[in-house]
Amino acid sequence: MYEIGVVYRNIPRAEAAVADQLGAFGSATVHEAMGRVGLLKPYLRPIFAGAQVSGTAITVLLQPGDNWMLHVAAEQIRPGDVVIAAVTAESTDGYFGELLATSFKAQGARALVIDGGCRDVKALGQMGFPVWSRAVSAKGTVKATLGSVNIPVVCAGALVHPGDVIVADDDGVVCVPRAMAARTLEAAAKREANEADKRAKLAAGVLGLDMYKMREPLAAAGLRYID
Amino acid sequence: MYEIGVVYRNIPRAEAAVADQLGAFGSATVHEAMGRVGLLKPYLRPIFAGAQVSGTAITVLLQPGDNWMLHVAAEQIRPGDVVIAAVTAESTDGYFGELLATSFKAQGARALVIDGGCRDVKALGQMGFPVWSRAVSAKGTVKATLGSVNIPVVCAGALVHPGDVIVADDDGVVCVPRAMAARTLEAAAKREANEADKRAKLAAGVLGLDMYKMREPLAAAGLRYID
Amino acid sequence: MYEIGVVYRNIPRAEAAVADQLGAFGSATVHEAMGRVGLLKPYLRPIFAGAQVSGTAITVLLQPGDNWMLHVAAEQIRPGDVVIAAVTAESTDGYFGELLATSFKAQGARALVIDGGCRDVKALGQMGFPVWSRAVSAKGTVKATLGSVNIPVVCAGALVHPGDVIVADDDGVVCVPRAMAARTLEAAAKREANEADKRAKLAAGVLGLDMYKMREPLAAAGLRYID
Amino acid sequence: MYEIGVVYRNIPRAEAAVADQLGAFGSATVHEAMGRVGLLKPYLRPIFAGAQVSGTAITVLLQPGDNWMLHVAAEQIRPGDVVIAAVTAESTDGYFGELLATSFKAQGARALVIDGGCRDVKALGQMGFPVWSRAVSAKGTVKATLGSVNIPVVCAGALVHPGDVIVADDDGVVCVPRAMAARTLEAAAKREANEADKRAKLAAGVLGLDMYKMREPLAAAGLRYID
Amino acid sequence: MYEIGVVYRNIPRAEAAVADQLGAFGSATVHEAMGRVGLLKPYLRPIFAGAQVSGTAITVLLQPGDNWMLHVAAEQIRPGDVVIAAVTAESTDGYFGELLATSFKAQGARALVIDGGCRDVKALGQMGFPVWSRAVSAKGTVKATLGSVNIPVVCAGALVHPGDVIVADDDGVVCVPRAMAARTLEAAAKREANEADKRAKLAAGVLGLDMYKMREPLAAAGLRYID
Amino acid sequence: MYEIGVVYRNIPRAEAAVADQLGAFGSATVHEAMGRVGLLKPYLRPIFAGAQVSGTAITVLLQPGDNWMLHVAAEQIRPGDVVIAAVTAESTDGYFGELLATSFKAQGARALVIDGGCRDVKALGQMGFPVWSRAVSAKGTVKATLGSVNIPVVCAGALVHPGDVIVADDDGVVCVPRAMAARTLEAAAKREANEADKRAKLAAGVLGLDMYKMREPLAAAGLRYID
Repeated sequence: MYEIGVVYRNIPRAEAAVADQLGAFGSATVHEAMGRVGLLKPYLRPIFAGAQVSGTAITVLLQPGDNWMLHVAAEQIRPGDVVIAAVTAESTDGYFGELLATSFKAQGARALVIDGGCRDVKALGQMGFPVWSRAVSAKGTVKATLGSVNIPVVCAGALVHPGDVIVADDDGVVCVPRAMAARTLEAAAKREANEADKRAKLAAGVLGLDMYKMREPLAAAGLRYID
Repeated sequence: MYEIGVVYRNIPRAEAAVADQLGAFGSATVHEAMGRVGLLKPYLRPIFAGAQVSGTAITVLLQPGDNWMLHVAAEQIRPGDVVIAAVTAESTDGYFGELLATSFKAQGARALVIDGGCRDVKALGQMGFPVWSRAVSAKGTVKATLGSVNIPVVCAGALVHPGDVIVADDDGVVCVPRAMAARTLEAAAKREANEADKRAKLAAGVLGLDMYKMREPLAAAGLRYID
Repeated sequence: MYEIGVVYRNIPRAEAAVADQLGAFGSATVHEAMGRVGLLKPYLRPIFAGAQVSGTAITVLLQPGDNWMLHVAAEQIRPGDVVIAAVTAESTDGYFGELLATSFKAQGARALVIDGGCRDVKALGQMGFPVWSRAVSAKGTVKATLGSVNIPVVCAGALVHPGDVIVADDDGVVCVPRAMAARTLEAAAKREANEADKRAKLAAGVLGLDMYKMREPLAAAGLRYID
Repeated sequence: MYEIGVVYRNIPRAEAAVADQLGAFGSATVHEAMGRVGLLKPYLRPIFAGAQVSGTAITVLLQPGDNWMLHVAAEQIRPGDVVIAAVTAESTDGYFGELLATSFKAQGARALVIDGGCRDVKALGQMGFPVWSRAVSAKGTVKATLGSVNIPVVCAGALVHPGDVIVADDDGVVCVPRAMAARTLEAAAKREANEADKRAKLAAGVLGLDMYKMREPLAAAGLRYID
Repeated sequence: MYEIGVVYRNIPRAEAAVADQLGAFGSATVHEAMGRVGLLKPYLRPIFAGAQVSGTAITVLLQPGDNWMLHVAAEQIRPGDVVIAAVTAESTDGYFGELLATSFKAQGARALVIDGGCRDVKALGQMGFPVWSRAVSAKGTVKATLGSVNIPVVCAGALVHPGDVIVADDDGVVCVPRAMAARTLEAAAKREANEADKRAKLAAGVLGLDMYKMREPLAAAGLRYID
Repeated sequence: MYEIGVVYRNIPRAEAAVADQLGAFGSATVHEAMGRVGLLKPYLRPIFAGAQVSGTAITVLLQPGDNWMLHVAAEQIRPGDVVIAAVTAESTDGYFGELLATSFKAQGARALVIDGGCRDVKALGQMGFPVWSRAVSAKGTVKATLGSVNIPVVCAGALVHPGDVIVADDDGVVCVPRAMAARTLEAAAKREANEADKRAKLAAGVLGLDMYKMREPLAAAGLRYID
């Protein structure tokens, strides 16, 4: 399935402005806007709370216990990218720490999403480099076996192509295929447009049952109230 | 086991004063006071640290990937309630977010406990609405299939009846059956009465071995010290 | 495998100065310095972020659902110790809370590492007593069955002897055997010596590919760049 | 939630003939017939393949690592019963083995369903006593702490009352509340009535799309075929 | 990521002869022959031991708890196909049972691989229709929401395109992309060519250390023997 | 904790006759006879049912995804040995298959216990070589990094020294330290001596309550019968 030992250098990226604006909506809204697909599995968790980022994907395929290709990937980073790292087997090792984060940040990366472990999390928090990972682990890795950079990868159960848009926050990580980025942005904007109005109504005590006109379909589905 | 498609409107609730006072003792003390039963499984975790709540249970049975009944439940909330949501299959989807929290809060709910996922966790933290959930996930849900409201449910392995008292904090979630609430409160108060004294002694260097008179039973059980 | 019902009182401890200094390097560096062994499994997590401790190990073997031996262990604590608690079966019960922490702290313990659950985590955070555990749970335990104190134990997959050095922080927990402590400290110091220099270079945009001279071995391994 | 230290001796049981006939339909059909509720979580697996049993529930609440109450339960078994054992904490210990199975069988039990571990599985297979458990483990248990017999229990996520009907086979375990047993039997029989006919049609190459008249609703839902 | 509500009817399939021959080598050899990629996660297990199949992939994307699209997929099956079913969320429900298996078999399918649950496993064993699934569960599903047929899916962590070759046996499930099928077959044949010879040598007591000439590289890597 | 890159050649082994006789008692009885310690975690499962073996331990420490040291271990096998393989990180890869089994068997090994994955399980069943593993996986491994042979290892949570006795069957795997082997054998024999008598009584309908004289302690513990 995977091509091993290759680095694609010139990848088409989703439009930067679109990628940037998608981030502001957050993963939950973007996921809805895409038709409820594209979510990476929720076992990926941020190493610190509150980060909200978006960017274009650089993809990396790692071998278990080996972070060599993260160094190779660093060279491919362009400002505004988010690095997406998959591993060819389930692993919680600490593939990424303070030094790599320093380098990624210097190259312009906004975040790392890794289907493996991360370490130096206190330092990463202090330098403000966000990571979504499946584990935190002090266990380091070797640099011995080739993987690939910028091939399509399956990361936490989702297919990510290089250049796709990644949106990540406390709720999780969503991948928006490059070709769908513009229309997803539009759909997300539409979803949010009347949110403030809804929020105000609900805060004032209006019930969703009435606001969304659910009483009739609920009755049609057979809901019975018992006193 | 479950009655589907019904909403019980007039449920007997545990006495509000008792429910309120139980919260001050926290889940660990209340769990002990009940004879070490009633704890929901510890995979339920708070979405932010530090919340400590208690209240009377509104129960909701959800279908997987469907949060319709949370809207139905909103109407049944009375000030001081805690909503307990079970799902008929294991699921980590994000059934609950900012809009529903706004509505629940407006109706007087103090918290949500859900054996499923939650989203918009940053916003929920900002509005101070606590949730105990098994996952955080951006994945939204549909509104298509009936469950029930205010029937007895099994949530995270524990049986909860509507009107029971729920106590939740950083240590977890405990359900106190309505009929046991008063006597559990008494037992909890008794447990805590001499805690300050014990704490002072231990802080002064007195050993639990001596304070609890454990040396004799330990010797009787055969404990040997080897120099 | 385990001797049950014994307490070893006079255990040889790693040198205090060495144990203290190892803590400053953190679990990730110490793990590397040992040759990438000695890590406890990453499911052990700190109950609050930011703690970084080291000390000499007091070991405890607990029976599932029973914390009796933690009281026995308290008497064996010397200032600078870290208590390492293993359980003879997988369990998430809350073996340790505020009262025991008060006692452990009074005896000079710096932290607890437990392959089980912990409770009263808000209070523990307020008193600043760090715990690494596999779970947080309000479920208390009984005091009925003997285990042992200061025998070698397997905790979260790692063998720990009493007197070994424990290093724990946000990245995890590492055990340094007493006999390897001095030379591990040396190796850790060596690793860190030129870290600042590396960090500066990477921050300035130098690539790890060049700094670590990886281009040649990558090419030798067959890495191909595709434009 | 649970009453500890009690044994209810005279429990009302579902009608034996109904319990017996439900078994013939198997867990999948019975689960459907109940409206798709009542299933114990699928982590419960049979210790050997091919067993298909039904019977009336004797319930047992065990303390973790303690099988004392299984001996107490043995006395309450009547021919045609299935023993349902819950544990107050998650545990994989081997609570049940050859000797208890010999006793249970002699008292007329048809099977054990346990939310814990089982051992002597080879011997149990040879004597043909079926067990559904969450684990197989050689780890034995003590006889030290009281639980209860014939109180309502939550077993593998499902609420079981003594006297309910249990249906178990290779597909899993279903609990049919006593009050629903007769009408569930009827519904199950209805479901199966035309199965043979459907099976024959499908085997002859008729598509479910046509047999179930799905083409129209699929089109209405928007399904598009692309050549 | 996924296109919802579409059925691709005319998919290019890998050559039947190649697909057939790959099956004889088994998943382990084929996985090696591909360069150790393409394996579906090992949590997929066969519902009965001993099946060894290969075929061309029909892919199905299911919604959680909904097996409607399996009926849609049945019409797309050609003799020699293997159906690969992914679900948009983690789920253990029983999506597939005896009736669907009867239909799939009648249409010429050789097996089902599903990242969800399966039921009627005894009947499936009796009719000899092999299934690899993540769970066995009596829990049935509804027919309410569209997914897709013959789009690329991620199943148990691996990307599968319609028409790829699937090889499955007791060791697991491997996907061979259509474009790599012929050369993988060649590589697999080469791997097996001298296996018989190796097996005979090892059975005669020759050590792998000598047969594979490992002593020198082991010494070079620093291996020390201690008497 | 671990010494890497060494092979201990002359290990003291438990007495062969003792190791052989322990096997006949099975893992459950031996585990009890040791005082309920020494069990490897129950996630280790046999690849086929019915095997019951015992022998002296050869230990192997593997690096994740690398089975080089299994070849090194083969040379250290003496007839009657059981190979115990630990991995320095959690891994389900297939480290062991038909060729290695052929070699191990030729050298006199009776079984493999591995805290990782195994493959070629059909072939292993046909040749009758038993394996207890944490997974079955077609994923092969490389031969690149040193581990060790015949050092003490932690395998599935239990400490195993080379030369210890291993007892494994359908119920799991137990390690009996060499120094405890003789007295464990005695204790196991004593346990079994009156089992036949007990079994006969229980089969005749005598209750464990009476046979074990439990009624009095149950009453003393407060058990109440309710009619």
